[in-house]
Amino acid sequence: MQTGNILLRDLDPDGILRLTLNDAARRNPLSEAMLDALATAFDTAGSDTSVRVIVLAANGPVFSAGHDLKEMTAGRAGPDRGRAYFSKVMAMCSGVMQAIVACPKPVIAEVDGIATAAGCQLVASCDLAIASDTARFSTPGVHIGLFCSTPMVALSRNVSNKHAMEMLLTGDMVPAARAEAFGLVNRVVAPEALRDTTMEIAAKIASKSQLTLATGKRAFYAQREMPLAQAYDYASQVMVDNMMARDAEEGIGAFIEKRSPKWQDA
Amino acid sequence: MQTGNILLRDLDPDGILRLTLNDAARRNPLSEAMLDALATAFDTAGSDTSVRVIVLAANGPVFSAGHDLKEMTAGRAGPDRGRAYFSKVMAMCSGVMQAIVACPKPVIAEVDGIATAAGCQLVASCDLAIASDTARFSTPGVHIGLFCSTPMVALSRNVSNKHAMEMLLTGDMVPAARAEAFGLVNRVVAPEALRDTTMEIAAKIASKSQLTLATGKRAFYAQREMPLAQAYDYASQVMVDNMMARDAEEGIGAFIEKRSPKWQDA
Amino acid sequence: MQTGNILLRDLDPDGILRLTLNDAARRNPLSEAMLDALATAFDTAGSDTSVRVIVLAANGPVFSAGHDLKEMTAGRAGPDRGRAYFSKVMAMCSGVMQAIVACPKPVIAEVDGIATAAGCQLVASCDLAIASDTARFSTPGVHIGLFCSTPMVALSRNVSNKHAMEMLLTGDMVPAARAEAFGLVNRVVAPEALRDTTMEIAAKIASKSQLTLATGKRAFYAQREMPLAQAYDYASQVMVDNMMARDAEEGIGAFIEKRSPKWQDA
Repeated sequence: MQTGNILLRDLDPDGILRLTLNDAARRNPLSEAMLDALATAFDTAGSDTSVRVIVLAANGPVFSAGHDLKEMTAGRAGPDRGRAYFSKVMAMCSGVMQAIVACPKPVIAEVDGIATAAGCQLVASCDLAIASDTARFSTPGVHIGLFCSTPMVALSRNVSNKHAMEMLLTGDMVPAARAEAFGLVNRVVAPEALRDTTMEIAAKIASKSQLTLATGKRAFYAQREMPLAQAYDYASQVMVDNMMARDAEEGIGAFIEKRSPKWQDA
Repeated sequence: MQTGNILLRDLDPDGILRLTLNDAARRNPLSEAMLDALATAFDTAGSDTSVRVIVLAANGPVFSAGHDLKEMTAGRAGPDRGRAYFSKVMAMCSGVMQAIVACPKPVIAEVDGIATAAGCQLVASCDLAIASDTARFSTPGVHIGLFCSTPMVALSRNVSNKHAMEMLLTGDMVPAARAEAFGLVNRVVAPEALRDTTMEIAAKIASKSQLTLATGKRAFYAQREMPLAQAYDYASQVMVDNMMARDAEEGIGAFIEKRSPKWQDA
Repeated sequence: MQTGNILLRDLDPDGILRLTLNDAARRNPLSEAMLDALATAFDTAGSDTSVRVIVLAANGPVFSAGHDLKEMTAGRAGPDRGRAYFSKVMAMCSGVMQAIVACPKPVIAEVDGIATAAGCQLVASCDLAIASDTARFSTPGVHIGLFCSTPMVALSRNVSNKHAMEMLLTGDMVPAARAEAFGLVNRVVAPEALRDTTMEIAAKIASKSQLTLATGKRAFYAQREMPLAQAYDYASQVMVDNMMARDAEEGIGAFIEKRSPKWQDA
């Protein structure tokens, strides 16, 4: 573990990488430094075979409050009143969100606290999300004249139009139970059970074939954007390639022989 | 307020425009006259800076029963057995539904009663919907040999495929609580609390920057139809433009200085 | 009824065709023989005017366990280690799933037991699904190194991204109540009420105009893949054509005259 960093990195022997936002005093903002750290962490983890699954957690009562408004305001000092700076930050932030989707390792958000604006987007961008029953979610940009237009890209791909618009137009805090009903989080548990629940799910996923997880995750988001017939053509080809891989042969053999599979990358 | 009209118009000092379907004796059908009145109302409100948010309500026990079947049947008298007339009415109706989506002001349906066929589509087309616990919803065209094919465009963009098909294939009435579970409405409240609940949400939205609401609403529906990467490129640009606007500068400044923002258009 | 077959076919006087997977001892796998039988059944039923609605049920405690892994493993014997064989089976399976969507008759899954992998996909591909409260669903390919990449095409068009990924990444069994909350099934009932519930819904749909059902079902899945404006243009044209058909004229006339409609194909 690297203490003192704004993003802690802790890899356990099962291949579960915990990334912990560690700028609690400032409400874990997605500052340039944090976005850089996240981009590097997902990029590195994506190609590190010792990492099998990633948990994204945070220290402090705020999971993440989104963009660093003081940093953004300072960016207005330039001759273009900040336009080039804002473009850079938005590109960095959207890059991190898409890096989570593109990362070949499954990513689980573990949310114990408040996730707002781009912080809520971070949760929506993860493959799975587990929250404590005290967690809350919002896209409150409308309160400050800055609609949560990039957060809504991730949000609206997870919850229905009416629910997304409710969050975006009112900026209201959504309690964890309602966020679960919306489909924004998978499970809501007591705060004291949060870490164990996340780690249990992470361990289950970490026990699978990495190749299979990477194949499936990539195919999931790819087929989701295709019309039905094209999605079936594409996914059928993915299945055939997956069948030809050593881990499927081993996994199916183990299943038929009623033994545990031994993955190539284990 | 214009009494005697089929569509009442009431603008309060906070900028909340209440449009009330007022053809209760005929179950508020989407007759040609009603579609014309709605088209004009949304068009006018869209460019009226004194209107900040729109509530769409109805007088009587039926929110709207959809198309005016007697008018449609009369349209069969033409030499083409009504084809040109039906085309005209369908274009008018689809135009109104898309005008709600395109309207720069947020639109909230307030449903106290029965919303069927194109009446249900009207609810689905609004950005938000609040219903009384006695409200009911259906797409019953299948009962009369006329599948609710245009209503399903809006319905299926709000509820899951299985739920949409359940409504479309059976034509059954869906109680408010189930409509809420489907995601068709945001909140269900007691009939006596309906108007206050809607107006409270409307007032909250009316207190925001109009420019920000218009920017965000337009971007929401636009990005929803794009693949992920394109949606992020587009939404990032929207965010940058939004940051450059005076209301975001004021809103962020007010937030940092812990004071209330003063919007340009307030 | 053809006993001894792996797919039983039972057409009742109301036009309800029950197709029953009947390979219970082997957990109703989607073997080549079963896929062939299903393809033929949906193709035949699609053009048989005596069939008004289709119920897809299964004998035994497992609705369907998905692909026949022993048959797939035997397919590896070829010189290409099975690639051509797997391609053939995936094409057959994806063909059956799309045949359900393309079938002009509504298809209702009746699930009393376990539906996994392509068996779960079968449920997701039907227009409606009714389950007993003991039914369970999973996409467990990840356990055997073979991600459920084709099942997820149907799954992800019925449930939210987070819910789909939960099923796909963990392979966990999802109880019926949770599957209902996900939107994968429409209704969950006691096992002893399952058949009656399905048949009641089937009878309701069977009483409608076949032409109208076929028109609406085709239009539903077609418009679902279009942007909003295009979907409205298309659906408006479908409505006009539907209005010109004899069954809509009869149905609307019957409604106005408060009598029961008499469909052309009844």
